[in-house]
Amino acid sequence: MKQFNNPSREEWSKLCQRPIQDFTQIDQLVDDVFIHVKEEGDAALMRYTEEFDNVRLEKITLDISKVDKHALPLNESLKQAIQVAYNNIYLFHENQRMDESVVSALSDLKCWRETRAIQSVGLYVPGGTAPLFSSLLMLGIPARIAGCEEIVICTPPDESGNVHPAILFVARLLDIDNIYLLGGAQAVAAMSIGTESVPRVDKIFGPGNLFVTRAKLLAFSNGTAIDMPAGPSEVLVIADKYADPEFVAADLLSQAEHGVDSQVVLLSDSIELIDNVQKHIEIQLENLDRKRIAIKALENSRAILLDGIDSCLKFSNVYAPEHLILNIENAETYSSQIINAGSVFIGAYSCESAGDYLSGTNHTLPTDAFARAYSGVSLDSFVKKISFQKIDPSALIELGPHIENMARAEGLDAHKQAVSIRLKKLINGKA
Amino acid sequence: MKQFNNPSREEWSKLCQRPIQDFTQIDQLVDDVFIHVKEEGDAALMRYTEEFDNVRLEKITLDISKVDKHALPLNESLKQAIQVAYNNIYLFHENQRMDESVVSALSDLKCWRETRAIQSVGLYVPGGTAPLFSSLLMLGIPARIAGCEEIVICTPPDESGNVHPAILFVARLLDIDNIYLLGGAQAVAAMSIGTESVPRVDKIFGPGNLFVTRAKLLAFSNGTAIDMPAGPSEVLVIADKYADPEFVAADLLSQAEHGVDSQVVLLSDSIELIDNVQKHIEIQLENLDRKRIAIKALENSRAILLDGIDSCLKFSNVYAPEHLILNIENAETYSSQIINAGSVFIGAYSCESAGDYLSGTNHTLPTDAFARAYSGVSLDSFVKKISFQKIDPSALIELGPHIENMARAEGLDAHKQAVSIRLKKLINGKA
Repeated sequence: MKQFNNPSREEWSKLCQRPIQDFTQIDQLVDDVFIHVKEEGDAALMRYTEEFDNVRLEKITLDISKVDKHALPLNESLKQAIQVAYNNIYLFHENQRMDESVVSALSDLKCWRETRAIQSVGLYVPGGTAPLFSSLLMLGIPARIAGCEEIVICTPPDESGNVHPAILFVARLLDIDNIYLLGGAQAVAAMSIGTESVPRVDKIFGPGNLFVTRAKLLAFSNGTAIDMPAGPSEVLVIADKYADPEFVAADLLSQAEHGVDSQVVLLSDSIELIDNVQKHIEIQLENLDRKRIAIKALENSRAILLDGIDSCLKFSNVYAPEHLILNIENAETYSSQIINAGSVFIGAYSCESAGDYLSGTNHTLPTDAFARAYSGVSLDSFVKKISFQKIDPSALIELGPHIENMARAEGLDAHKQAVSIRLKKLINGKA
Repeated sequence: MKQFNNPSREEWSKLCQRPIQDFTQIDQLVDDVFIHVKEEGDAALMRYTEEFDNVRLEKITLDISKVDKHALPLNESLKQAIQVAYNNIYLFHENQRMDESVVSALSDLKCWRETRAIQSVGLYVPGGTAPLFSSLLMLGIPARIAGCEEIVICTPPDESGNVHPAILFVARLLDIDNIYLLGGAQAVAAMSIGTESVPRVDKIFGPGNLFVTRAKLLAFSNGTAIDMPAGPSEVLVIADKYADPEFVAADLLSQAEHGVDSQVVLLSDSIELIDNVQKHIEIQLENLDRKRIAIKALENSRAILLDGIDSCLKFSNVYAPEHLILNIENAETYSSQIINAGSVFIGAYSCESAGDYLSGTNHTLPTDAFARAYSGVSLDSFVKKISFQKIDPSALIELGPHIENMARAEGLDAHKQAVSIRLKKLINGKA
């Protein structure tokens, strides 16, 4: 990690920049995928799967309705772990159900909102090198709690055309009957446009590589909602002299192993802590399976010495990290100072891996400083709120003249008339 | 309005289609605006304002901090009406504040979410032919309730470089000090990129013409959040034989006057009602200021006879209207059947104009069938929710092995290590 000691306030925004990528070529390919999926449907999907995933499918739909989740080739301790994760994630997201009361500014005027599930949602689950069954838990559980009628899963098949048993296990836990064997931009195109096999969905969720990410943005421009724009994963750790440098090093590495484009940032007011963390990163790196990826990611990463924990928090709010770990004394007392972050881990034992898998919080979080404006995925992401109003005659008599006034001032004559015509009948007693 | 009697279920989706527009030329122009605003900042903004709004500005920022709202040249009854609207909208949106409880799956594991205001928001307020001060109420009030630190208003100047006093009045009600004299794509570009005068914001809100709409999509692709994608405004009215055809005609016209691309749809199970509404549309049209616009909009609009109110509601869910008016007997008993809609008006006296101005609900709503996946603007639109977790040693000892299991199965070794290293110290009693 590159180290910066006491950078000036002017340098912060530069230090908060993520690597800028040029998407031109990717976007051209993604455009092309959408055009062909639209024109040729399933045939295009089969062709892309052969080309990109090296597998010739007989069909796109994998019917798993008869799969017995207990009989899947997974060790029992993993099944147990997944069940614990399922329970905790369920509990946390069920708590996000909210009912709003009816508002009455006048006795005969009632305004309220009601929640409805988004009817059809598409969940993208990356496969390939890492079968991210945890992402399916994070998306499928709130979708089920919300009551989404149709839940579509797309995940790329392996070279034999199969799906990892852990993904099947989670799909059966969620009571989902079909998986579509599709990865990359073609999966997103299929869910956005619809084909003979794959239903068109109202909203697409899930992480993925650059092709998936850019395809989601194109789907959004074409009228399909998406969970959020996504970039490479990131963590920012704030640690003081009391932090265990081995823990800090391990947390930074757990983010760095995600991908060569991951970003990890360490902020501290202690130069000793930074030095020690750097040492332990070198030590721990040696034994990591994904050492090469982590080393690449660390090249883009930063350790920054600042003049106190308050400055660290201010810097963090400018950076707006996806994950923020507060490995500092009395960490909980600082929570109110956190304004921009996706998910916050408080204290020495709240490691990001816990939130990634099973503490209950969602791991689908805003990257690339989008935490300034976006929340992570939650139950809210799978519902919409419809507003309702019921205005009875006496309320219209009271409010009507004000509506007429405002409509007139905006030059919207017919808006005024819709009220006037009612008031006339009400006041003349004809209604 | 074109009339369709008892179309088959297969024809519904065609009848639900909105006019398809080709954005290629607009997008090229919008791209160009963004490039120039990025390169030249304020100078480009001044040039575009001269070109598109026919006014040569001395400066972009209009300081209104010293404007006395009571002294503005507006009649008292309009000021009163605006104050009533302000109060009702405030009441409805304040009711949307929610606190979630802390979730503890284990005694030493705490997970929760906290709400934070989006720090900087940009509100676009259309001016031109209709100075939409009501939109400023709808956006500014929840922004203030949320606690957004910086609220930026962009609105196009008139040909003398001024802003309509009703917009100034609302801005002062909201305690906003500056207005930026900018309209169209250049306003969106300025708020997305930032210039010498205009601050870069985290999220852009507000209605606008096609240039504004497409510019917001480009801003989104470039990393600025937006309230929602927007198309032309729409209303769908379901009316039965008990409905007053004059009311229905007036409601349809109040939408049709918005723009030539507005869409209005009438559904009924009564051919007599449809005939009578068509007649009253002709009659009422004669006296409307915006008759020409309404006639054009009606050409794209549809009156559809269906075999019962249940079918009307099913059709409406496929259409997913921005505004839905239920002008039917016992309208309130049908609300649970409504799945896709932006805002619903229940009963003969709940006219859309009331919701457009002052009943309290928000009028910034999803168009173009986006109501399938989006809510209208609300307090939620101006905040994000950050998740927090605090895991104490005993909880990590219990959950740790499950996390290790899941991380191993996903091939994420360093995720596992972040837990193992802690467990080792905890269990060896070194921590």
